[in-house]
Amino acid sequence: MLRKIEHIGIAVKDLSASNKLFQDILGVAPYKEELVQSENVLTSFFQVGESKIELLQATSPDSAIAKFLEKNKEGMHHIAFDVEDIFSEIERLKGLGYVMIHDEPKAGADDKLIAFMHPKSSNGVLIELCQDRFKK
Amino acid sequence: MLRKIEHIGIAVKDLSASNKLFQDILGVAPYKEELVQSENVLTSFFQVGESKIELLQATSPDSAIAKFLEKNKEGMHHIAFDVEDIFSEIERLKGLGYVMIHDEPKAGADDKLIAFMHPKSSNGVLIELCQDRFKK
Repeated sequence: MLRKIEHIGIAVKDLSASNKLFQDILGVAPYKEELVQSENVLTSFFQVGESKIELLQATSPDSAIAKFLEKNKEGMHHIAFDVEDIFSEIERLKGLGYVMIHDEPKAGADDKLIAFMHPKSSNGVLIELCQDRFKK
Repeated sequence: MLRKIEHIGIAVKDLSASNKLFQDILGVAPYKEELVQSENVLTSFFQVGESKIELLQATSPDSAIAKFLEKNKEGMHHIAFDVEDIFSEIERLKGLGYVMIHDEPKAGADDKLIAFMHPKSSNGVLIELCQDRFKK
């Protein structure tokens, strides 16, 4: 079961310019920046209620964010939903016929285990499942 | 101040097909459908934590959703943030130099007063402010 919107990922070209912009709009500063070397992205996170806004800037042309920005303008990239047990959610969705990009979860930013669904399976919306790696 | 993600709006071509798909993925049925005649959209809402997923299907070629789908694939259309006082938020954002599509709030779906920011002001992300019309 998907328990809440964990975060919305937004692809940006210039993280520091977008940090200022979203700080203005949201009325709150980012609570952290994190370089995710495995994904070639520099990220920042804003807390809004129980959810987060994650800004993503590519650090290499190989990054999925760089490839997204070759085809699209800056903007919404994915929605991540919080799950209690990512392994059972992957099995549940595959059992219903949906296609996962990741059949096995992998380590993501912000101390999460993550897995993406294929957007062809989900109405063009790139959906990420994520579970806390450490009990809170 | 933006208090929480009120909803994420997703543009779809066929509401009943997408309702089934999101019911599968989210593990919950839509809690209502609503025709918003002023916007020429048929909408459905799913509750996920404190936020909602809103699916939007155009009911006329004049609809903003029809125009979006002429240029884009189905997918994320806007993020709506809950605010306590939409009038003061509009003034706050305009005071910071941001451009609103609606300088005055108007009636939206789901018993809300709403106002959209211009996406050129917000990194390509279409942002909606919304306030409950009736105290809960």
